[in-house]
Amino acid sequence: MKTPKIVTTRAELRQAIAQAKPSSLGFVPTMGALHNGHASLFKLAREENELVVISVFVNELQFNDAADYAKYPRTLDADVQIAAAAGVDIVFAPAAEEIYHAGLPLVRLNSGVLGELYEGASRPGHFDGMLAVVAKLLHLADPRQGEYRAYFGQKDAQQLVLIRRMVEDLDYPVQLRAVPIVRSEQGLALSSRNSLLNEAELKAALVLHRAISLIAGRAARNEPLNLEDAYGLFQMEPLVELDYFVVVNPDTLQELAFNCQDTPFTGEGLILVAAKVGGVRLIDNQPI
Amino acid sequence: MKTPKIVTTRAELRQAIAQAKPSSLGFVPTMGALHNGHASLFKLAREENELVVISVFVNELQFNDAADYAKYPRTLDADVQIAAAAGVDIVFAPAAEEIYHAGLPLVRLNSGVLGELYEGASRPGHFDGMLAVVAKLLHLADPRQGEYRAYFGQKDAQQLVLIRRMVEDLDYPVQLRAVPIVRSEQGLALSSRNSLLNEAELKAALVLHRAISLIAGRAARNEPLNLEDAYGLFQMEPLVELDYFVVVNPDTLQELAFNCQDTPFTGEGLILVAAKVGGVRLIDNQPI
Repeated sequence: MKTPKIVTTRAELRQAIAQAKPSSLGFVPTMGALHNGHASLFKLAREENELVVISVFVNELQFNDAADYAKYPRTLDADVQIAAAAGVDIVFAPAAEEIYHAGLPLVRLNSGVLGELYEGASRPGHFDGMLAVVAKLLHLADPRQGEYRAYFGQKDAQQLVLIRRMVEDLDYPVQLRAVPIVRSEQGLALSSRNSLLNEAELKAALVLHRAISLIAGRAARNEPLNLEDAYGLFQMEPLVELDYFVVVNPDTLQELAFNCQDTPFTGEGLILVAAKVGGVRLIDNQPI
Repeated sequence: MKTPKIVTTRAELRQAIAQAKPSSLGFVPTMGALHNGHASLFKLAREENELVVISVFVNELQFNDAADYAKYPRTLDADVQIAAAAGVDIVFAPAAEEIYHAGLPLVRLNSGVLGELYEGASRPGHFDGMLAVVAKLLHLADPRQGEYRAYFGQKDAQQLVLIRRMVEDLDYPVQLRAVPIVRSEQGLALSSRNSLLNEAELKAALVLHRAISLIAGRAARNEPLNLEDAYGLFQMEPLVELDYFVVVNPDTLQELAFNCQDTPFTGEGLILVAAKVGGVRLIDNQPI
């Protein structure tokens, strides 16, 4: 197992990539606190590219709460171990001053209507801040030759829709790759937040996947979705407070009103769910 | 005199650049209606690069008025002649559907405070719309190898500050080059709008440069600027209605209050002026 090269400045990153002269580069931006969900991104990037670069950067712009930002886990040593095990070549771990070298950005990305829905409604400014740093990082890791791919988890479905749209709207020279959710044996989508749940909450949290599976099964069989039955599952879990459970158009994120009533489901959709379990907000989703 | 290659799709542009495999590429985005001011950008790009690419695209997003957009001059044949004379290799002249292939952008650039001042105050949304298309075009003309330079006129000083800030804030892999204003023999900054002025208005419009020169001269001699004298020149021109005449920080665009009073001028600044002559809005500027 090779230790990745760790670089902290933009110049070092540029130089490390230029020296490697890769025929293909796979890039995975992260905020650290890595788990097996991240590792699945690294592994796919490893399979598909000559050089694999990840970034570990906790981006203050995407936190609406300064205390949340301050207490976000920073575990670089453990992160590097996980990166090493997945075959990552370069870890870019810059300080905030290196990323925001000109001060906090004055020219910002605006995520528009897509950024106001669902997670955006709960976390005002979150998606604009996320785009601000992804827009930078996609430039910083650009190999400037050969193939360039960037990997994002399907877990953050709305984030993925927004990044996809940014890449189209700004014609970024990068190919996006979405990587499916990694789940526990019992079906819970992996998240660094799961470690905050006690045993009873962990068990209750399985309702997210149970409800998704119920509706996804109906969609696969072209049956009416009848979302009320999913809501009913949540009502039976007193530890879980449902925020939203919706079926949306996978590009526009608009709710598919028609297909969610008692007519047979056809076409494509995306099930999105968010709920609080104990004090912890969890999200999950599934394309149908 | 070689005729430039004219391409209209993103794929053709990419292919034409890839075939040329340039060691350096100079890119000049324009809205067409080209004059000698544009030609000076093309010529500098020609001197400094192996391949010169220009775009001619009237971007609807930067017009606040649909009628203005509709009547904006489209003179591609004449534009290609001017490009040919300046040694341009490739003219990218896409239709709106080609640039906005995914529909009008949902993820937008937000020009923030820098975009609300001066020209932004007169033209709400103008700078956001301008950045939306420049952000795309800088990707589309990217040679993905060798040196990459983009050329912008100092004439649109606020636009230049915003593009410079966007390139820093998003770490675009391009080097920006600012090209000085080209003036008529009498000092009027070249603009496609000058053709809308009658003889008396053309003469009156010279007050913009006269006022700038007065203040720039004082700055060069480290004298107090006493901007009132510049305002006085405008008051003597009944055909000219002054919008603003300010001395600002060249990066932040904030007014230099202290240096504009009767203390000796030191440091750096940028004189910005906008005025209506007849019904035509003109701008001019000078770094000091």
